Amino acid sequence: MSQTLQQMRLGLFIQAAGHHASGWRYPGAQSGSENIALIRNLTLAAERACLDMVFFGDKLVTSGKDHPSMIVRFEPLTLLGSLAAVTERIGLAATASTTYNEPYTVARQFGTLDHLSGGRAAWNVVTTGYDSAANFSRASHPKHDQRYAIAEEFVDVVRGLWDSFEDDAYVRNAETGVYLDVNKMHRLDHQGEHFDVAGPLNLTRSPQGHPVLIQAGSSGPGMALAARIAEVVFTAQQALDTAQDFYRELKREVVAQGRDPHHCLVMPGIMPIIGATPVEAQARFEQLQQWTDLDAALVLVSDRLGQDLSGFDLDQPLPDLPLPENMKSRAKLLLDMSHRDGLTLRQLCHLAAGARGHKILVGTPEQVADEMIAWFEGEAADGFNLMPSHFPEGLELFIDGVLPILRKRGLFRHAYEGRTLRDHLGLPRPAHRRWAGEP
Amino acid sequence: MSQTLQQMRLGLFIQAAGHHASGWRYPGAQSGSENIALIRNLTLAAERACLDMVFFGDKLVTSGKDHPSMIVRFEPLTLLGSLAAVTERIGLAATASTTYNEPYTVARQFGTLDHLSGGRAAWNVVTTGYDSAANFSRASHPKHDQRYAIAEEFVDVVRGLWDSFEDDAYVRNAETGVYLDVNKMHRLDHQGEHFDVAGPLNLTRSPQGHPVLIQAGSSGPGMALAARIAEVVFTAQQALDTAQDFYRELKREVVAQGRDPHHCLVMPGIMPIIGATPVEAQARFEQLQQWTDLDAALVLVSDRLGQDLSGFDLDQPLPDLPLPENMKSRAKLLLDMSHRDGLTLRQLCHLAAGARGHKILVGTPEQVADEMIAWFEGEAADGFNLMPSHFPEGLELFIDGVLPILRKRGLFRHAYEGRTLRDHLGLPRPAHRRWAGEP
Repeated sequence: MSQTLQQMRLGLFIQAAGHHASGWRYPGAQSGSENIALIRNLTLAAERACLDMVFFGDKLVTSGKDHPSMIVRFEPLTLLGSLAAVTERIGLAATASTTYNEPYTVARQFGTLDHLSGGRAAWNVVTTGYDSAANFSRASHPKHDQRYAIAEEFVDVVRGLWDSFEDDAYVRNAETGVYLDVNKMHRLDHQGEHFDVAGPLNLTRSPQGHPVLIQAGSSGPGMALAARIAEVVFTAQQALDTAQDFYRELKREVVAQGRDPHHCLVMPGIMPIIGATPVEAQARFEQLQQWTDLDAALVLVSDRLGQDLSGFDLDQPLPDLPLPENMKSRAKLLLDMSHRDGLTLRQLCHLAAGARGHKILVGTPEQVADEMIAWFEGEAADGFNLMPSHFPEGLELFIDGVLPILRKRGLFRHAYEGRTLRDHLGLPRPAHRRWAGEP
Repeated sequence: MSQTLQQMRLGLFIQAAGHHASGWRYPGAQSGSENIALIRNLTLAAERACLDMVFFGDKLVTSGKDHPSMIVRFEPLTLLGSLAAVTERIGLAATASTTYNEPYTVARQFGTLDHLSGGRAAWNVVTTGYDSAANFSRASHPKHDQRYAIAEEFVDVVRGLWDSFEDDAYVRNAETGVYLDVNKMHRLDHQGEHFDVAGPLNLTRSPQGHPVLIQAGSSGPGMALAARIAEVVFTAQQALDTAQDFYRELKREVVAQGRDPHHCLVMPGIMPIIGATPVEAQARFEQLQQWTDLDAALVLVSDRLGQDLSGFDLDQPLPDLPLPENMKSRAKLLLDMSHRDGLTLRQLCHLAAGARGHKILVGTPEQVADEMIAWFEGEAADGFNLMPSHFPEGLELFIDGVLPILRKRGLFRHAYEGRTLRDHLGLPRPAHRRWAGEP
């Protein structure tokens, strides 16, 4: 049993053209990157299935190395605003960068989303691994440690801004003429190394108090930030034992920060490839893999590992390589997988091109459920971030096949019990901070 | 007859607690600043009435001088995303600052909104008059001319980013495996005085090609920017003759820029206060004015005019005062109104607190319609931006009383004819720019 929970948490990661690079070519697949009708339908299907949340990634730069199905995407906050209007219960999570945004703006956006959705917003805090300086009039992309130092301060500013108003400040008493109790409005007056933000935010405190904070860094500074502030941690894990190590280490750091480990949920990404029989599942997987463009995959893996691999033998395993300065943990994951499973570079390219480093579960609904349960009960995961290979079928096969098994085992909800994302996830509503001078 | 149009354009400016500072206290009024149900209902009512668009202002700083009903508000893009999901035809316009945003982000947000809404997005380009530096880690707020120089470049970058992809670049051919035709993707590689933005934008070209551009500056640099780029100009005008001067001058500048004057629509703000009889309308107005807090109004007018007026005699007209460096045109409007109508400072405070400098039309539906028609036919306006004093009644009285008269006169549509905001406004879809090296 997971040390923290009786039931799994499940998010749906909605991405472009399916999470498998060739998912959009699968027979019957629809493409999601700029297809609002599909995105809305997937979100509604996830809500009918009572998943905890839908989640959107983000990227701020386009390079020639990008797979074309990953280049275009909607701006996530505007998109989530749209999804808030057509849903009632499911959580709405999006990525926003602490390197290329202003804390005042991010605080407004997620605070607004929390208001619009009645308390269902979540912010995935990222520092942006890819050098995006060229799109933001910056001379250079900050280095890894510097990005995390900025992120630490950025998050503190945002949380402070979310507490600009006490919960009962929004009075609107037409009789007395008091619209807002300005005595319950507080200035942050933050002056730090990276940001000076006076506040107050021009938004009252939102239904969740603070939108839920998600973090995905698995590096040292990433885990330190997660342990201090994250309420959900997305992670990419390939094997049960390393996932258990990560889980144990993170929960230990959470406790060291004086936090309840139940309030920092570990959710690895998984790509379920489901068939009625093991053979059908494997055939589906092979059909997806057949379209892999090896040249493009080699560029992708080279990019991930921070060096040109075109000189290496495709039919030999990679040697030990030095890790790149940026996105070190994603590179390490790929190298570890390669070495653990004795993959040739060709095999590594195929797998990386497919699931982009996340765990692929190929099998029947029972097999997929069993593996998820093994991770959940083995204290490797508090839940999962679902990354279907192609849409909508990949999601439907999971909802129709795997969820009933999890429910029968008492490991997933039959209906939402609460109204907010914090309710779904079992997270407390943060108390309003006491400002200096408050009685 | 307006020189440009057969029919009026009408927008609904949705603001906080009604546009009259005391509107939220009016019997039966609802408060809109953080009331998504009300905002949605107003938007749907405006769409049923076939108005061209709804519009949201914005502000990035809170000061002790703000009227409490004007302090909190939703972040406009997240809000418009939400409204896009529940509407089908009405235009969706929001303000975004060129001083406190990144062009790459603004291009994504409005481009996304245009995609989500099927071609109904509009961006109100503002330079932000109020000093907001303290919320954005800036040492100082740029001066007026500097802000407009930044805005000129900002808009050019955004328009360039919107043309990153040719219209037919989004192929998604599962058969051939071509998702996006990357030969039809172009880098902007802008290097300017204020911005360096490489691009391409990570979004295909949107249904309108470019979202509609709105501008509201009435100063010299403001009009120059409007003449060059604006397709709609919001303006505050108090009298027919000065409105005609502004209209004539702006259209002349538009033509001087080589543009069709039909493609730059002048829409002054008006606050209709409507009653079944002139007496009832006047009573409604006086009921609204009765709640004016004179102290707060004096602070507001002082703020607008850039100097402390507490030493002046409330029962005398203001002398000629030097105009402030920031928001000069708004200050000038207030002083002109005061001098033209021989208002005492007390009267000026009452009017400014009520409609914030916009034209108040108090009367029966016929009187309001007649005045609007006189402006429209007298080449003072191509349409109006409606600023109801209180919601929802102020809007309902206009829709039920004034619109039928305008329709009977053939001056307003009975039904939408097109699908996009450009269709409604009679604006052409911008051609995709030819990039260097294109055949």
